[in-house]
Amino acid sequence: MVHAKRWTLKKHFVGLPTNSDFELKKVELPPLKDGEILLEALYFTVDPYMRIMAKSLKEGDMMMGEQVARVVESKNSAFPTGTIVVAPSGWTTHSISDGEKLEKVLAEWPDTLPLSLALGTVGMPGLTAYFGLFDICGVKGGETVLVSAAAGAVGSVVGQIAKLKGCKVVGTAGSDEKVAWLKKHGFDVAINYKTVKSLEEALKVAAPEGYDCYFDNVGGEFSNVAITQMKKFGRIAICGAISVYNRTGPLPPGPSPEVIIFKELHLQGFVVYRWQKEVRQKALRDLLKWVSEGKIQYHEHVTEGFEHMPAAFIGLFKGENLGKAIVKA
Amino acid sequence: MVHAKRWTLKKHFVGLPTNSDFELKKVELPPLKDGEILLEALYFTVDPYMRIMAKSLKEGDMMMGEQVARVVESKNSAFPTGTIVVAPSGWTTHSISDGEKLEKVLAEWPDTLPLSLALGTVGMPGLTAYFGLFDICGVKGGETVLVSAAAGAVGSVVGQIAKLKGCKVVGTAGSDEKVAWLKKHGFDVAINYKTVKSLEEALKVAAPEGYDCYFDNVGGEFSNVAITQMKKFGRIAICGAISVYNRTGPLPPGPSPEVIIFKELHLQGFVVYRWQKEVRQKALRDLLKWVSEGKIQYHEHVTEGFEHMPAAFIGLFKGENLGKAIVKA
Repeated sequence: MVHAKRWTLKKHFVGLPTNSDFELKKVELPPLKDGEILLEALYFTVDPYMRIMAKSLKEGDMMMGEQVARVVESKNSAFPTGTIVVAPSGWTTHSISDGEKLEKVLAEWPDTLPLSLALGTVGMPGLTAYFGLFDICGVKGGETVLVSAAAGAVGSVVGQIAKLKGCKVVGTAGSDEKVAWLKKHGFDVAINYKTVKSLEEALKVAAPEGYDCYFDNVGGEFSNVAITQMKKFGRIAICGAISVYNRTGPLPPGPSPEVIIFKELHLQGFVVYRWQKEVRQKALRDLLKWVSEGKIQYHEHVTEGFEHMPAAFIGLFKGENLGKAIVKA
Repeated sequence: MVHAKRWTLKKHFVGLPTNSDFELKKVELPPLKDGEILLEALYFTVDPYMRIMAKSLKEGDMMMGEQVARVVESKNSAFPTGTIVVAPSGWTTHSISDGEKLEKVLAEWPDTLPLSLALGTVGMPGLTAYFGLFDICGVKGGETVLVSAAAGAVGSVVGQIAKLKGCKVVGTAGSDEKVAWLKKHGFDVAINYKTVKSLEEALKVAAPEGYDCYFDNVGGEFSNVAITQMKKFGRIAICGAISVYNRTGPLPPGPSPEVIIFKELHLQGFVVYRWQKEVRQKALRDLLKWVSEGKIQYHEHVTEGFEHMPAAFIGLFKGENLGKAIVKA
């Protein structure tokens, strides 16, 4: 008999999630049926989107999310024991799958790279950066790109890909340590938005000619200011809005409609699952290649132990993570 | 000697513009030089965008805007006396032009149609509807379109073109008289947003399947509600934001970023002058044809007398006009 430990949503979040909103449960898994496999989690991801998705859970449901897992028992010839997959199994140490929604890590994955990157730079956040920048922003070499939460799982990839493609890149982050990391890894300008005297002024000084693209991870007041600094016909990829996910009151004032209209700005919300099959596989291979060749640097903020998943998740909203927040099982 | 009467901006607007923000002046025009023509205004337009553009004027400057004018004296063979043009001359009864920024009304303009339509349905507002719907919304037949300020100069054309193209059209307006006009002219559903119990509920009942396109003329709280009713991958053309142009405090809360992200909405601000030359001429001909054939109905809210221009302009923000607000010289 296999027992899985699971983190469930005990109470719906009000404001910043707290440890007591979660409950750890133990469940017994049934024996495998034909076609099924048993997965053991190696790494878990925590991501800001879970703050939103959890609203659709019932209290008592398991938290959703991806994990890198190993097949430890198999009745499915497509997934022999030992296969490494990315699985949408949720916050659970063990799970049973029919293989349907699993994605094997790329065959060419080198031993030198941690498998946890399949949840980060060579996984959902990396793909989000890739498609957001290329397909949503339609970025071209020589353009000026602004990215918020630039030291985060998505933003750090956005900025580095934009540099690879020959853009000028301005990134903002919430600590001097993060700003130092950005400068070290090629961002043309890195701004600590928490300590800067005037964000508007700092963005203007960083790119007096304005921004062609803004990759928006934070929303709220920050983005209102960023929008004023766009060039005419600027493009804004709306990826996340972490600054307002924990609000209990109304949203902050919206962006200036006059700026959006007269600068003829183009804003687009997006979710990475829009891109599937060949384009997704190509993007994963590009990302893996760039990381393998050292053209994209990664940083992981690793929390050890499944029991600390809630803390790792809550840490996202306190700006604790530099790079991808990962929980090691 | 020709004397022109001109409306100038006496004081920058604070909140709703008032009569005392304007001053009527009389100026003497110089004799024509070679290549110049003298224009006498026949019709003036007042449009919401002037509330925004006036911010860039110095106090004492003439108000900006288009007029339909007749050439009354000419030293330019391209514009003989009697030619009818649309001119960006501002709020002035007479003006001198070198012909550069003038647009002749279409040669095929029928005698049966008032020339003032060149400032409305077959002019800037009509073009705004046309390009906003086709190019920005990318509307296709069979889709469901929502338009706010639907009985206005732009909105009334948006809805009728969308119907011509085989869409289901829901329009909102601020009086029962306007709602009646919309229903009479083919809108599938027309809603008085001022008297409806719940706008969200009304929009949902009107199109339970949601909206593919939202043509936004009003911004603010209305648009926040509209955005929640969009379909996945919905497109929003941000044309105007009349509900917030007169604000003296901060903007109302912004739209839900969660909705924009998870529905993967596409929002775009635009100004009609983006489309020029051939595409503009084609659009004007299409509009003239549709009006001539009775496929698009127009309504003009005509104020008689140049001396009442400020009142006509202020009336826009009080929702006084059904259709295009025009001032007859």
